[in-house]
Amino acid sequence: MIGNSSCGVREAGAFGTPVINLGSRQTRERDRLVQDSENVLHVRDADTQNKIYHGLELQFGKRYPCSKIYGDGNAVPRILKFLQTINLDEPLQKTFCFPPVKEWDISQDIDHILETQSALAVDLGGTNLRVAIVSMRGKIVKKYTQANPKTYEARIELILTMCKVAVVDAMHLNCRILGVGVSTGGRVNPQEGVILHSTKLIQEWSSIDIRTPISDAIHLPVWVDNDGNCAALAEKKFGHGKGVENFVTIITGTGIGGGIIQHNELIHGSTFCAAELGHIMVSLDGPECMCGSRGCIEAYASGIALQREAKRLHDEDLLKVEGMVDLKKAESVSAIDLINAARLGNSKAEAVLRTAGMALGVGIVNILHMVNPSLVILSGVLAAHYQAPVQQVIGQRALTSAQSIQVLTSDLDEPALLGAASMVLDYTTRRIY
Amino acid sequence: MIGNSSCGVREAGAFGTPVINLGSRQTRERDRLVQDSENVLHVRDADTQNKIYHGLELQFGKRYPCSKIYGDGNAVPRILKFLQTINLDEPLQKTFCFPPVKEWDISQDIDHILETQSALAVDLGGTNLRVAIVSMRGKIVKKYTQANPKTYEARIELILTMCKVAVVDAMHLNCRILGVGVSTGGRVNPQEGVILHSTKLIQEWSSIDIRTPISDAIHLPVWVDNDGNCAALAEKKFGHGKGVENFVTIITGTGIGGGIIQHNELIHGSTFCAAELGHIMVSLDGPECMCGSRGCIEAYASGIALQREAKRLHDEDLLKVEGMVDLKKAESVSAIDLINAARLGNSKAEAVLRTAGMALGVGIVNILHMVNPSLVILSGVLAAHYQAPVQQVIGQRALTSAQSIQVLTSDLDEPALLGAASMVLDYTTRRIY
Repeated sequence: MIGNSSCGVREAGAFGTPVINLGSRQTRERDRLVQDSENVLHVRDADTQNKIYHGLELQFGKRYPCSKIYGDGNAVPRILKFLQTINLDEPLQKTFCFPPVKEWDISQDIDHILETQSALAVDLGGTNLRVAIVSMRGKIVKKYTQANPKTYEARIELILTMCKVAVVDAMHLNCRILGVGVSTGGRVNPQEGVILHSTKLIQEWSSIDIRTPISDAIHLPVWVDNDGNCAALAEKKFGHGKGVENFVTIITGTGIGGGIIQHNELIHGSTFCAAELGHIMVSLDGPECMCGSRGCIEAYASGIALQREAKRLHDEDLLKVEGMVDLKKAESVSAIDLINAARLGNSKAEAVLRTAGMALGVGIVNILHMVNPSLVILSGVLAAHYQAPVQQVIGQRALTSAQSIQVLTSDLDEPALLGAASMVLDYTTRRIY
Repeated sequence: MIGNSSCGVREAGAFGTPVINLGSRQTRERDRLVQDSENVLHVRDADTQNKIYHGLELQFGKRYPCSKIYGDGNAVPRILKFLQTINLDEPLQKTFCFPPVKEWDISQDIDHILETQSALAVDLGGTNLRVAIVSMRGKIVKKYTQANPKTYEARIELILTMCKVAVVDAMHLNCRILGVGVSTGGRVNPQEGVILHSTKLIQEWSSIDIRTPISDAIHLPVWVDNDGNCAALAEKKFGHGKGVENFVTIITGTGIGGGIIQHNELIHGSTFCAAELGHIMVSLDGPECMCGSRGCIEAYASGIALQREAKRLHDEDLLKVEGMVDLKKAESVSAIDLINAARLGNSKAEAVLRTAGMALGVGIVNILHMVNPSLVILSGVLAAHYQAPVQQVIGQRALTSAQSIQVLTSDLDEPALLGAASMVLDYTTRRIY
């Protein structure tokens, strides 16, 4: 039930129905009432759609214990008896008569929840290990970054130390940590909290139970998923994927990864290697990929692939064009230099990027023809660059019925951290009695 | 509950619990009992796993009304009173004392259901219009075939006529028709029973409500889905997909189609064009496809694609090799001639088939990397030919974690008809009170 009627505070409570109370009217009424039961979630300044949406998320599907505010079931005879005492010849005026107000308040307040309930998010990347305190609103309250150690022992020790520090800080920041979410490279079994098989970028990181040590140290529930899947979860909770039943996120960074949401849930597949979107092949031969195969979109369109081509052009002295600032040594030439060169009219750089955009676009068309999402979200550093070429390839090569799809660029700063946090924030507030 | 205890017939009935009674012991007991309630499904000759599996499918998730066989709740005082009348100094012998047997029998019998409950299946292909009576066991009891008319009016009229004839025949064959399932080429909205957009092979077949005219004429519920999806449903109910949570069916016939099962359900996608598996692209350029794009696996590996290559070789007089019977005119040269030529050592034909197998294999690897099924089922006339090459490409090009997948060849004769029937047989027997 949603609204500002006192039914929500009284009658709905008797049935255990979840209620969202909008505005301040029933807040005042509540002050006069004693039996304000825990079924009511107050959204006092219901000025933004977003706040009501949050409230709905928190209350949806819940059942509360029924409050017993209506006594022993003998109201009718009592009312009849009372009515008989009234002199109907005289005018009547409604007066309020409530029992005295109790001290405690067991109802919930959306502002209090949004401001204090938080998650600890851990992101294990090829280079960095990051921990953050993330609020229910998706605000990164505090962030910690360290180089990701090369060995299992050093890494686990650092994770636990950083988490413990963050938990102490959270208390001082008035953040109530509900649990820990971990985003990591590699293939993950989220049911068991185990990293099955890592990417080449993180060593000593296969067959690792990451849930147990963190849970033992912090005494909070722990969720784990692959970073591509976490990025999709971040879009679902805080980004363009909010309220979208079927969508796909593709991250174009150093590598290419992503996640697929179908019927509001991630597709994990039978051995947890679904949504390996970087390894969609768009060529029977094509360039070699780090996975050992050929023609994967990662081998055409990732940061590493573009850097490889930039270096090749630079080695042949074909990269620099008029207007470009001096380039550094070949080792530090990057995808961004290639993109700059193309913008300044370098036709060889343009050709590389055209092929990369085509490969990524064809890979995405393959996604459309397989799971038919209603939205594609590009994230990662190269997202803005690829949006137009991908939309163009879809127009040229997708089946008519799949061409109407939207391709958007993510506006989230930290998809991996926000996705890791969302596992905690979603699951711990989805209580069903 | 499953077993042969009389608890199933008595106590479970009182709670409305679904029971599967195995063997004949309780059948005999039943003859002596009057209150055999409808919660019991009898599987008398429980000799095959399959029959018990069918029984489980029928009973799973059901709730029955509670039978009131235990009277008014005053049994204890009555028993005590009775016990006091017994002379415990004399020996006691158990004797049975049941109320008289009633005439009617409201329990269910698995054999009766499997033999009589049936579906009407309609398959609308590019060439033929077929109708069949399909039993709960997946047996095609009777089949009717006509050329698929070219106009909407003639086609609808023929469908209705064929269905009406089949319904009359079904009665004489002791088949109880539960509903009509329609498998058709093109994109289908199964919720509405509407064909949104047809393939080029069936004319005047877009934006067609097929449910209403059939339902109006036959007075039975009607289900509709795309033929690729129906093939997947057929595998789920009657084929290799039985009990498999995530699998994919790929049909390699004139064209290439298929269906994806995830968490035991078809993926339809946001605009009902998921699982357009023939239009997975494995080349940035590649041969032209009927869909207007290039490099689709259908353009490499379908019957039409192989026939095109066979014709090309034949035109250049490069197809015939020693040992082949005389070939007909180029127009009638087929994919089978190409396969024969390759078997007899024609290296050009071999190369065409190698590329086709590679393209299909890479397309299937793309499926593995996207939805990670645990089983791939190949069906259609070319399935047996492609099984080995596909398995080989998976070994070479899939990620390690996806390589363990099984690739099987379907052993169903009529996937489209069986899948159409399965929509009826599954939904109508999945009653939940």
